[in-house]
Amino acid sequence: MTFFLSTADAGFEADFAALLGMKREEAEDVDQAVAAIIADVRARGDAAVLELTARFDRMALTADRLAFSPAEIEAEIAKVSPEDRAALELAAERIRAYHARQLPEDASWTDAAGATLGWRWTPVSAAGLYVPGGLASYPSSVLMNAIPAKVAGVERLVVTCPTPGGVVNPLVLLAARIAGVDTVYRVGGAQAIAALAYGTATIAPVDKITGPGNAYVAAAKRRVFGRVGIDMIAGPSEVLVIADGDNDADWVALDLLSQAEHDESAQAILITTDAAFGQAVAAAVAKRLETLERRAIAGASWRDNGAVIVVRDLDEAAALANRIAAEHLEIMVDDPEALAAKIPHAGAIFLGAWTPEAIGDYVGGPNHVLPTARSARFSSGLNVLDFMKKTTMARMTPEALRAIGPSAERLAVSESLQAHGLSVRARLDRLNDR
Amino acid sequence: MTFFLSTADAGFEADFAALLGMKREEAEDVDQAVAAIIADVRARGDAAVLELTARFDRMALTADRLAFSPAEIEAEIAKVSPEDRAALELAAERIRAYHARQLPEDASWTDAAGATLGWRWTPVSAAGLYVPGGLASYPSSVLMNAIPAKVAGVERLVVTCPTPGGVVNPLVLLAARIAGVDTVYRVGGAQAIAALAYGTATIAPVDKITGPGNAYVAAAKRRVFGRVGIDMIAGPSEVLVIADGDNDADWVALDLLSQAEHDESAQAILITTDAAFGQAVAAAVAKRLETLERRAIAGASWRDNGAVIVVRDLDEAAALANRIAAEHLEIMVDDPEALAAKIPHAGAIFLGAWTPEAIGDYVGGPNHVLPTARSARFSSGLNVLDFMKKTTMARMTPEALRAIGPSAERLAVSESLQAHGLSVRARLDRLNDR
Repeated sequence: MTFFLSTADAGFEADFAALLGMKREEAEDVDQAVAAIIADVRARGDAAVLELTARFDRMALTADRLAFSPAEIEAEIAKVSPEDRAALELAAERIRAYHARQLPEDASWTDAAGATLGWRWTPVSAAGLYVPGGLASYPSSVLMNAIPAKVAGVERLVVTCPTPGGVVNPLVLLAARIAGVDTVYRVGGAQAIAALAYGTATIAPVDKITGPGNAYVAAAKRRVFGRVGIDMIAGPSEVLVIADGDNDADWVALDLLSQAEHDESAQAILITTDAAFGQAVAAAVAKRLETLERRAIAGASWRDNGAVIVVRDLDEAAALANRIAAEHLEIMVDDPEALAAKIPHAGAIFLGAWTPEAIGDYVGGPNHVLPTARSARFSSGLNVLDFMKKTTMARMTPEALRAIGPSAERLAVSESLQAHGLSVRARLDRLNDR
Repeated sequence: MTFFLSTADAGFEADFAALLGMKREEAEDVDQAVAAIIADVRARGDAAVLELTARFDRMALTADRLAFSPAEIEAEIAKVSPEDRAALELAAERIRAYHARQLPEDASWTDAAGATLGWRWTPVSAAGLYVPGGLASYPSSVLMNAIPAKVAGVERLVVTCPTPGGVVNPLVLLAARIAGVDTVYRVGGAQAIAALAYGTATIAPVDKITGPGNAYVAAAKRRVFGRVGIDMIAGPSEVLVIADGDNDADWVALDLLSQAEHDESAQAILITTDAAFGQAVAAAVAKRLETLERRAIAGASWRDNGAVIVVRDLDEAAALANRIAAEHLEIMVDDPEALAAKIPHAGAIFLGAWTPEAIGDYVGGPNHVLPTARSARFSSGLNVLDFMKKTTMARMTPEALRAIGPSAERLAVSESLQAHGLSVRARLDRLNDR
């Protein structure tokens, strides 16, 4: 059942540690199956992709039908209502504006020794975005993955999305169109990841793969990491709300349920300075669960993983929040910025009662692909830099080499790397001959 | 034998593809052994670490001796010559100055809808740096890993380094001291990575692990990825030199051998517009190999993986260089900056004949931990951002929510995420009631 903890309780530390250590998702052991699928796609290319698609998605395709044709895309997106289209376009515009500010700057300077140093950022040439099929096929995720890639300047951007039994979400195709995706392939699972990483006759290989997926997709991404770049291995979603008693319990309940409805493994936690408010939120959750469409999922998530933690003050709240390192953090207190400044470890922060996390999922502007499972301790949400890389640059003058070369030579010798030292020495000798 | 290719040859494309596709390193299948070691350290903590250290490093330690004591460190670094110390300090100072410029800026702005958006960069709290023992125990790598972490603001920085039979490199301890490392543990292998990721009674867990290692270390890093952040899975080193005929063949030969002497799997490639110069370089390599201390290693690398490629012009050189996406790229032509601008895919670029790659290994300033095996297509060398993460921030006003909330609600409904929509709707209704 939902955890009710209070930092004033004697057993708090043990209970909190148990909450933190909870394994919310059983890792399915699919690694061997995935290894075989990847090997098959590497060996047989399109033939393997087509066979696996027939088997897993019940789709008899041919290679020339792996990609949606322009006519198919037109026919699908014609089904989208003008209102849905307008909402997607607003979201795209806001996401684009936010991410455009993330474009990094190159640098170049000459230092006292006369060395010219710097770096240069460039985009990856090609990126592949995995979009799940069925229930978890979210058009908003297409925007959140594809737009940063386009902002970065990625030249070729493709989507793979399984279409079990031929079913596709028209909004996904529209989102891909709005975001500037070049090609959408109707293929999913580990076979899609393998095709993106190694290429087939039909699907050209990419340099970076992003996007969420099931256990097979996650295992495949982990396996191809190194051959291509990947974004992250995403776990179930989480929200942490820090709220004082001066809030609407129903709003907080709905914010908690916004995470809970994603997945039975999702986790929603409330930290509050007001025990009575904590009880009121729990009651509001129970009431909303009576009528919520996804009450089975949201109810299981809240029951198994949900928590209400009562703290003595906001400093305690900040300390716990840093240990939780939540994917989403809502701060609903008097001066939310001041509290946020004490919480370095969070994926995305939503400040004040008028900023429900759902705004961030769609139209806020920041990315909704965020680090889960405490990985906000060391990683960031998806951003433009994920689709770029930095090349360092250095240019010595003869004078610069004369100034710092001898130290390089000395260190090379100390590391028993003679040729390193000689490559510097040969040049220094030339200078001395002058 | 060393590859000699020319773009003018009919079979060039096939030969070049073969060169690119070469598997230079047999992946040792150590994954099962590593899984067992990690499980053992998780289950038994220090006891497992000590047993494994006794077995693999022939070191009978106790938990209180896992870390070097201040007195031990003093005694070791007293052995370092003043000249070596001065060289290390110069290198540290230059690396620090370069990386200090990489510190990113926070951002915050208010957009037309009234939403305040932005992001904030913060360092990881604790980082662990793996330093190999024995021959590959490079003090320069300690600086290259530790200094970016310190510049980022990492609070706790530890090193693990195996000391087989008790042997330690005093320069490694001095480099750790100079870079500001807090603690050095004499433990290595997968057990060190497991201890850093999961913690033991003696070794507190960290958030990020960087540093090179053998196949066991690489497999362990891949396994703990997600629990903690890791830098990259490094492969054997590579250099690509692009040089016209107006160069000193011996300098180029020494630059090629600087990579070749690292490892039999290392790869050194020359691309030149001048076939005769290519032959002269090959001859100079052969001559230098006669006397080089590490001629067995460097000779095997050059013989098995080395290549000289003759191109018709520098545009061809750039196109090939982008396909190779070399870890290190030296450009020794008339206008090296102009050619560099055509080569987005490289880890680090060294411009002009006076910039041997060895400068970058030690004292240039840029990092020498760089993407290998063509991963410069999608990843960067180690830098300050590797030890930081970005938290996105958003704050809506009631007016901002009124402007963009309805689109969020609409998209939530289209994705069948009712609670998401309700969390926005409840707030919009309050506004309408006003």
